[in-house]
Amino acid sequence: MEIKVNTGILSANEQKAVENRKLFKENGVFAINLMGSPGAGKTTVLEKTIDYLSGKVRLAVIEGDIYTSKDARRIEKYGVPVEQINTGGACHLDAKMVSGALSKFDLTGLDLMVIENVGNLVCPVEFDLGEDQKIAVLSITEGDDKPMKYPLLFRESGAVILNKMDILDFTDVDLEGLRKDIHIINPDIKIFEVSARTGQGIDQWAEWLTDRVKDTVK
Amino acid sequence: MEIKVNTGILSANEQKAVENRKLFKENGVFAINLMGSPGAGKTTVLEKTIDYLSGKVRLAVIEGDIYTSKDARRIEKYGVPVEQINTGGACHLDAKMVSGALSKFDLTGLDLMVIENVGNLVCPVEFDLGEDQKIAVLSITEGDDKPMKYPLLFRESGAVILNKMDILDFTDVDLEGLRKDIHIINPDIKIFEVSARTGQGIDQWAEWLTDRVKDTVK
Repeated sequence: MEIKVNTGILSANEQKAVENRKLFKENGVFAINLMGSPGAGKTTVLEKTIDYLSGKVRLAVIEGDIYTSKDARRIEKYGVPVEQINTGGACHLDAKMVSGALSKFDLTGLDLMVIENVGNLVCPVEFDLGEDQKIAVLSITEGDDKPMKYPLLFRESGAVILNKMDILDFTDVDLEGLRKDIHIINPDIKIFEVSARTGQGIDQWAEWLTDRVKDTVK
Repeated sequence: MEIKVNTGILSANEQKAVENRKLFKENGVFAINLMGSPGAGKTTVLEKTIDYLSGKVRLAVIEGDIYTSKDARRIEKYGVPVEQINTGGACHLDAKMVSGALSKFDLTGLDLMVIENVGNLVCPVEFDLGEDQKIAVLSITEGDDKPMKYPLLFRESGAVILNKMDILDFTDVDLEGLRKDIHIINPDIKIFEVSARTGQGIDQWAEWLTDRVKDTVK
């Protein structure tokens, strides 16, 4: 009974995700789904990325949060179009929520759509939003055992941003072990060592993202 | 339809939680449900707490994880009884899983049961496991906006452990603002400033916990 219901929900989501994907493709928009724990630094990474891409890539943002619009207000200051989705308790975005937000943008004038998911290392991974690429953000302060404990996000993502590298020396994290574990889970994943606070490594990540955007035929 | 199904699931969980609570009460065991993001430091806090309580409080541990038994292996080294629950993908423990684990302990010889939930700031809060007290662990590296963004855990918890205080100076966290936000959400919550790495503040938290355990009639 439970399985049947869950399958139903997933299928409805999949259907909506296909529609979103089609919409992105028709408008030549590259879409990423930014995921990670609460406090991994998703919004700060995004702020620095917007700064870097300013004048080069036309982007918009969908902010997913359970209740507040704190993150959307942070992004608005950068002068990019932003829509807030409040899930009202739900621990992840779904394709229908994203579809509703998409209708409020003029997609023809965009190159990149960044969807920042609810802070959660588990549930969001299972819901396709229609994005081209899942991107994981992991703060090194979360500890080097996290990829093996929560492998699905790392298996599904095209890149992982290791954030808060500026305080690596004040943690017990084994960076080489962490990198190795991530590559065991997903040999093809690109790893970026970043500090959104100091700006370190943002250029490499943003350039990689720009290349992906450029590959999307307008 | 969805609502009906969800209500059904919650009720089944509630029923099992009542059974667990009865079992704890009959055996004079105080039970806590330790919750927080991946990497908040739940297991390290637990290790230091076990060290502190050694010889004073007879405790056992239920470790909740999605796939691995890494945390249970860490706890085993301390010579306390431990049972691992692997949720196999699910983002939270439920009362039925805990009930299964409980059957493997001799509860008559215990004072305290610590249930370490799956790393997740959202979903676990909604599932009563039959515990006496929910305890939140928040790493200060997660940022001072987290209580307002994920209020439910803080509203439901009897205490919050602010972990990784030893690296506060290397973050932009406004500690006073963070404390204030937590108290707005829950004026009665007890806040402990801790570093599980250095041991700072573990004594105050562990003494508070010991007092709760002593209040439980054997």
